[in-house]
Amino acid sequence: MIGPRRDSKWWGWGDPAVAPQLDQAALATLRERVGDLRPSSRMVELKDFELPDAEPLPQALVDAVGEENVFADAEDRIRHATGCGYVDLTRLRSGRLEQAPDAVLVPAGAEEVKRVLEICATDGIAVVPFGGGTSVVGGVAPLRGSHTRLVSLDLANLRAAEVDNRSLTARLGAGLRGPEAEAELAQHGLVLGHYPQSFEYATIGGFAATRSAGQASSGYGRFDSLVSSIRLIAPAGELTTLGTPHSAAGPTLRELVVGSEGIFGVIPDVTVRVRPAPRQRRYEAWIAESFEAGTEIVRALAQGPGLPDVIRVSDEEETEVSLALSGPRGVAAGLFGGYLGLRRRRNGSLVIVGFEGEEESVARRRALSVRELRRGAAVYLGQSAGRSWEHGRYQGPYLRDTLIEMGAMVETLETSQTWSGLGALHAGVGSAIRDSLASQGTPGIAFCHLSHAYPDGASLYFTFIARMRDGAEIEQWQQVKRAASEAIVANGATITHHHAVGHDHVPYMEAEVGSTGLDVLRAVKDQLDPTGIMNPGKLLG
Amino acid sequence: MIGPRRDSKWWGWGDPAVAPQLDQAALATLRERVGDLRPSSRMVELKDFELPDAEPLPQALVDAVGEENVFADAEDRIRHATGCGYVDLTRLRSGRLEQAPDAVLVPAGAEEVKRVLEICATDGIAVVPFGGGTSVVGGVAPLRGSHTRLVSLDLANLRAAEVDNRSLTARLGAGLRGPEAEAELAQHGLVLGHYPQSFEYATIGGFAATRSAGQASSGYGRFDSLVSSIRLIAPAGELTTLGTPHSAAGPTLRELVVGSEGIFGVIPDVTVRVRPAPRQRRYEAWIAESFEAGTEIVRALAQGPGLPDVIRVSDEEETEVSLALSGPRGVAAGLFGGYLGLRRRRNGSLVIVGFEGEEESVARRRALSVRELRRGAAVYLGQSAGRSWEHGRYQGPYLRDTLIEMGAMVETLETSQTWSGLGALHAGVGSAIRDSLASQGTPGIAFCHLSHAYPDGASLYFTFIARMRDGAEIEQWQQVKRAASEAIVANGATITHHHAVGHDHVPYMEAEVGSTGLDVLRAVKDQLDPTGIMNPGKLLG
Repeated sequence: MIGPRRDSKWWGWGDPAVAPQLDQAALATLRERVGDLRPSSRMVELKDFELPDAEPLPQALVDAVGEENVFADAEDRIRHATGCGYVDLTRLRSGRLEQAPDAVLVPAGAEEVKRVLEICATDGIAVVPFGGGTSVVGGVAPLRGSHTRLVSLDLANLRAAEVDNRSLTARLGAGLRGPEAEAELAQHGLVLGHYPQSFEYATIGGFAATRSAGQASSGYGRFDSLVSSIRLIAPAGELTTLGTPHSAAGPTLRELVVGSEGIFGVIPDVTVRVRPAPRQRRYEAWIAESFEAGTEIVRALAQGPGLPDVIRVSDEEETEVSLALSGPRGVAAGLFGGYLGLRRRRNGSLVIVGFEGEEESVARRRALSVRELRRGAAVYLGQSAGRSWEHGRYQGPYLRDTLIEMGAMVETLETSQTWSGLGALHAGVGSAIRDSLASQGTPGIAFCHLSHAYPDGASLYFTFIARMRDGAEIEQWQQVKRAASEAIVANGATITHHHAVGHDHVPYMEAEVGSTGLDVLRAVKDQLDPTGIMNPGKLLG
Repeated sequence: MIGPRRDSKWWGWGDPAVAPQLDQAALATLRERVGDLRPSSRMVELKDFELPDAEPLPQALVDAVGEENVFADAEDRIRHATGCGYVDLTRLRSGRLEQAPDAVLVPAGAEEVKRVLEICATDGIAVVPFGGGTSVVGGVAPLRGSHTRLVSLDLANLRAAEVDNRSLTARLGAGLRGPEAEAELAQHGLVLGHYPQSFEYATIGGFAATRSAGQASSGYGRFDSLVSSIRLIAPAGELTTLGTPHSAAGPTLRELVVGSEGIFGVIPDVTVRVRPAPRQRRYEAWIAESFEAGTEIVRALAQGPGLPDVIRVSDEEETEVSLALSGPRGVAAGLFGGYLGLRRRRNGSLVIVGFEGEEESVARRRALSVRELRRGAAVYLGQSAGRSWEHGRYQGPYLRDTLIEMGAMVETLETSQTWSGLGALHAGVGSAIRDSLASQGTPGIAFCHLSHAYPDGASLYFTFIARMRDGAEIEQWQQVKRAASEAIVANGATITHHHAVGHDHVPYMEAEVGSTGLDVLRAVKDQLDPTGIMNPGKLLG
């Protein structure tokens, strides 16, 4: 039995021992772009943290999981009170939370989950399903809705791992973290291939509940496309979708459960498609003349036969700034600087491509990609720059902690659009962010990369950095977030490509699915969760 | 404006001029397998057909589409009273229908559809959306539910075709038939690539509403995977899903509309992903040592890099019988006979593989496939046998008419399962069909092919042929259908891989989605169609 985990920073991302520092050149770039930063002063000890009092829970609920699996001390309540978005971290650093679960329950398995939901439905206790707690959109915010009590249901013990080697499927427990799931599969020589930036801490259940996409999703497929069948334990009943490769028996209920973000019930396990572990991984970097040129290369690849497993094009701003910030300075930046010097230009767009699989498959697909890259006038920078990206692929959130500590607001957001609308979306959202930052007196950086390519379009992933408005951090963030979201909606794009809706994107759901769509989702919610205990305030608000 | 179409047999499939005949060898094979047939006597002239009287419709409904677009004569009512399943054809040949729409309405566009649904919802008139009328599972049966009046809503005039060349998407009207949609796309050098056996008469709206799969779906993708966005006009409102390539904004409502079989509302148009028209098509035949060996080859292909666009493995029985029946005798049968003679064996499994695309892509992918085929000890039969299959790919339903006329029951059914369960499913369903036929005193043929391959499994498509039980044709069919369906359910497989649920599969929906799943679908139905006018008796019963 695994209790609620405590192996990451309670106030930030991941392993406390990993603390990247910026070198002088990076600091200079940052100062040039966002002005002087004043180190963020607010940061309390855990023992001084202010939390609301916990409401007492009915004994039946405690008995449902056993007293030893009910955790109500401050640290566990704090660790289950937020996700890992900028706003979450800002609140945590303030040393005070207005909302926290009354307790964390850690059920031993699906039967206990069922029992917990029964009791909570009867007694009107809100339930927040909790996987890795890595939501950046308020997905695990302890919002009580119309209820006075709330528990966080930590699924860490749902650890099934059953492999069908012949069909290349695996039933994986919701509580398995990315590396844990891969370790189970590796025993069979298999791989899932789902690598979001949160990979090290996020869980299988969370991947399914949020319709996650990973860095290699162009090749392996988004998480939703990897799901062969899924189970949902809802207050009003249990739903298991058939594990056949395809069915024409009506609407696909699997797609109602995937992405349901805990508002219908709990996903105890997911059956996913897996594949043989790749024998080779080859990552390399290229430089395109511009973001537009890089985008056109990716379009050609996505609409032709040669789409790599990983494909990523940074816009000119991201190329310049992220290389400056992502120490250690060296390989990538050195190569890139050399290229720019050679071309006597300041601009260029970094392209990362990655291939995974059998040696022969990597060689074959790389040849197809290289042809398009060269046709699009991209220049090869080599494998070391690619490996440098690969090694740093999960480092973004660590760097964010460093920057927050220095007094910077750092946030990301993502969307997707068809190829026809991608240029306007890139320009519109970038301007909206920069204008909002400037209008608040905190001019900042907004950069973007294209990170998931489809035959009909791609996703854009924006990062922005600015000086914190001291004492008004959340208001500052809200203004930028609103401006960016409105630009996304105005462009007819989706409010989220892979971060999910959580609490933050609720205001944009009507633009996303329309009022009839909202009515349908509410009807499903009423059917499955008639007393509204499941993850109140998320997805539908 | 296109009225209700009359360009196919009202009593059978397709072009009346196409009437394949069996040669002596085929007749001998048939006699040997199913006994002597007595030509089906029952077949009346259209003028003698007995139909129930039509209920009068409110004037407002007539006005909604204009009087000239309301068709209430016998032929149009008959043509909209059934699909094209064996039971439908049996009823039509009897010269009498117990149910028919009161009229056929042919709206000019989406606005008129909306108006029709408003009036029908208010007045309690059942509505059956009608595309090509090619359902083989009772999908357009004029079942009134709790209503006394029923109209067939023929979508023939919903003929939008807007192409986004850059994003490779096209918005296609629900009323476009397969060849019409392809003709529109061909003007842009594009192709949809969706070729179900009903291709020539079925429509875009029907493909979406039934979650169709085509013969080349291993390569082009099933229809559901081609849908980028979809629109639904429901009595309670309109729903349009976002046209972005992907979104993580909650459950995918697109997947609730796709496969909804008209029970939630009308699909006026669908935006699909398209691709450049292939420059080359290469079809070829191989022979595997057995169905099991052929299946293993397909599994290797589907789990590796070389899956062809078309892949199809006939079991030993289908290989033998279908070659005997599918005149003209010649290329395929000759080659195959030669092979069997050479090997001095009676058995073998015909494998059809097809590649479409750029010459280079065809060559590259074929090389990968050939390697697996040879590794699995399959023997190459050549392109002419493959072309022979390609040319006859839409001929099955014509041959069925011939056989019915001769006094044979001919029906097909399909399912899918993971690779691990496929062998048991093949054996179980085959036995169930044969046993049911034998127990009725009409021993017959049951054969099967694997026709859609996925990394985790495949579909099986069964055909059965037996002597009609004269005067008890429908009861005979019901017994076999029930036996086969129960075998499918007992194997944990899906009740339908691509024919949809319609009316025939309703009894198996609980096994498919569970009682909670049914409750969810009913909740969605109640939300979108509160007065239950949309296609009563289908999908949910």
